[in-house]
Amino acid sequence: MPTTSAPHVAIVGATGAVGEEMRACLAERRFPLGKLSLLASARSAGKRLAFGDAEVEVRELTHDAFEGVDIALFSAGGGISKEFAPSAAAAGATVIDNSSAFRMDEDVPLVVPEINPEAVGDRPRGIIANPNCTTIISLMALAPLHRRFGLRSVIASSYQAVSGSGAQGILELEEQVAAITAGRDFEPRVYPRQIAFNVIPQVDAFTANGYTKEELKMLNEGRKILGEPELKVSCTCVRVPVYRSHAVSITAVFGEDVDPAAARACYDGLPGIRVKDDPAGGEFPVPLDTTGKDDCLVGRIRRSLVLDRALDLWVVGDQVRKGAALNAVQIAELL
Amino acid sequence: MPTTSAPHVAIVGATGAVGEEMRACLAERRFPLGKLSLLASARSAGKRLAFGDAEVEVRELTHDAFEGVDIALFSAGGGISKEFAPSAAAAGATVIDNSSAFRMDEDVPLVVPEINPEAVGDRPRGIIANPNCTTIISLMALAPLHRRFGLRSVIASSYQAVSGSGAQGILELEEQVAAITAGRDFEPRVYPRQIAFNVIPQVDAFTANGYTKEELKMLNEGRKILGEPELKVSCTCVRVPVYRSHAVSITAVFGEDVDPAAARACYDGLPGIRVKDDPAGGEFPVPLDTTGKDDCLVGRIRRSLVLDRALDLWVVGDQVRKGAALNAVQIAELL
Repeated sequence: MPTTSAPHVAIVGATGAVGEEMRACLAERRFPLGKLSLLASARSAGKRLAFGDAEVEVRELTHDAFEGVDIALFSAGGGISKEFAPSAAAAGATVIDNSSAFRMDEDVPLVVPEINPEAVGDRPRGIIANPNCTTIISLMALAPLHRRFGLRSVIASSYQAVSGSGAQGILELEEQVAAITAGRDFEPRVYPRQIAFNVIPQVDAFTANGYTKEELKMLNEGRKILGEPELKVSCTCVRVPVYRSHAVSITAVFGEDVDPAAARACYDGLPGIRVKDDPAGGEFPVPLDTTGKDDCLVGRIRRSLVLDRALDLWVVGDQVRKGAALNAVQIAELL
Repeated sequence: MPTTSAPHVAIVGATGAVGEEMRACLAERRFPLGKLSLLASARSAGKRLAFGDAEVEVRELTHDAFEGVDIALFSAGGGISKEFAPSAAAAGATVIDNSSAFRMDEDVPLVVPEINPEAVGDRPRGIIANPNCTTIISLMALAPLHRRFGLRSVIASSYQAVSGSGAQGILELEEQVAAITAGRDFEPRVYPRQIAFNVIPQVDAFTANGYTKEELKMLNEGRKILGEPELKVSCTCVRVPVYRSHAVSITAVFGEDVDPAAARACYDGLPGIRVKDDPAGGEFPVPLDTTGKDDCLVGRIRRSLVLDRALDLWVVGDQVRKGAALNAVQIAELL
């Protein structure tokens, strides 16, 4: 931060689902703002968006738009990040980028503040990357266990909300439900198949080994965030007709033996993650529990019936909050 | 079968979701029926239900209702099966029971016709059990691979349709979607939490080890059907807001090395299961693909990135058809 006065923060992609949540997080958390700039495409320029009790006018995103900006929160897709983040950094801003554009760049730290906050210090490009949403939520459950028992491998199946595709994903689910209820025809636009009353085992594009990019993010980003280049991860990412919380079913294998009670104790007093795990009492987390909430919830912690030194567990978190906007604002708070 | 003439078939639970589909399967498959009896609770007695071009009157289920019945298809819950299946067997009928009441009974064969048809021959109690729906659909994908490569263990996460809770599960999802759309309040009745726009990691009751009964069925029934008492299975069963096809994300470990192309070839020419697996061409199975269809679909077959000699794969199947009614009618056809 070049200044000790309250920083000038810019949000790039201010009109999107994550951009909207970034505004909400800044306001709710009383982030010490000097000035707020909202940047978006020319189409949205001139719109006035609420911030607390005030309104801020959206300006067009240009290469010159970062004059005087201290922190630039990017959430407008990888293409926009690749094109404009270097300009923001050159103008002196620290970029916190929510896209996948720079996540695997060796000179860009990839940060979950509860897990590797120290990584923000070393940012030669002036860019810090915000991890993939499913990865953040999974690691919120896995990192505390890793510190205690030594995580070796992860097998996961996800239940991912449509908010992961932005405002248009939410709209597509709403429109399909309305069309089906009214008996009208419709064509999927955002997703390759109908998402209402269906589940789709494809999130992001397929790669040559049969896994999707989303599934490999869990592997590659997980290794980088935990600093464990030997970690093994195999994942099946599935879109489900839920609006904005992701859930992940995980089998986690550790270097040491682990029992469920000891695993639950690992979360005692930690920020950002809570245990909800009393099956006999009907207590387990569901996506609706975390909708609009900051904390992730972990439950269904039990010994794997297949693998040694392994637990099966279930974690849920708000994709727009901890999976994106909140994590980015928390990184900004670290600066 | 005590007679070589066309059999007298009774459906117990004729007014339920599976009972209805049993009628449809008998009609569509031109099952050689001598007579059809529809049995249900006193409340439904007197109703007239369609069968092909005709109508059949529902009679009350009593212990005397099985006089002259050759095959009794039960789908009215475990309590009804326990109470009435012995009466049906004593009256000379062969019982095909869709509940979990007799599945683990050593004297009751547990049969998927494509996998272990020979087991129907040995039925000292006169009862044959129809397996759990998620188990049937998973094994339709796993059994052909087991025959070739020797299945050792299974890690699975399910995406289970509301039809698994019968007609009331379907109604609950419909009613919740309507209430949410209209902005009305509602109380969950069938499920412990809201199922619309949510997922619930509980199917059936919890047991002492933290797994649900449904999750343990995959283990215990899988071992019995495949005849592999050492098979290991660890499973997370999740209800999703889908109407009537289940999906299962599976990591399967084998005794021999297996590659995806060889795995796909295992399904060539087999009845009841088809490969839909061309990610580059956008081809993978979703629950809507199998809704109202007989065949299960398998796809997303790829090497596990965590375990040796292991594949990750994805299977979908109609819960009411192959998961219940169709499998029962196929067992009747074996007799």
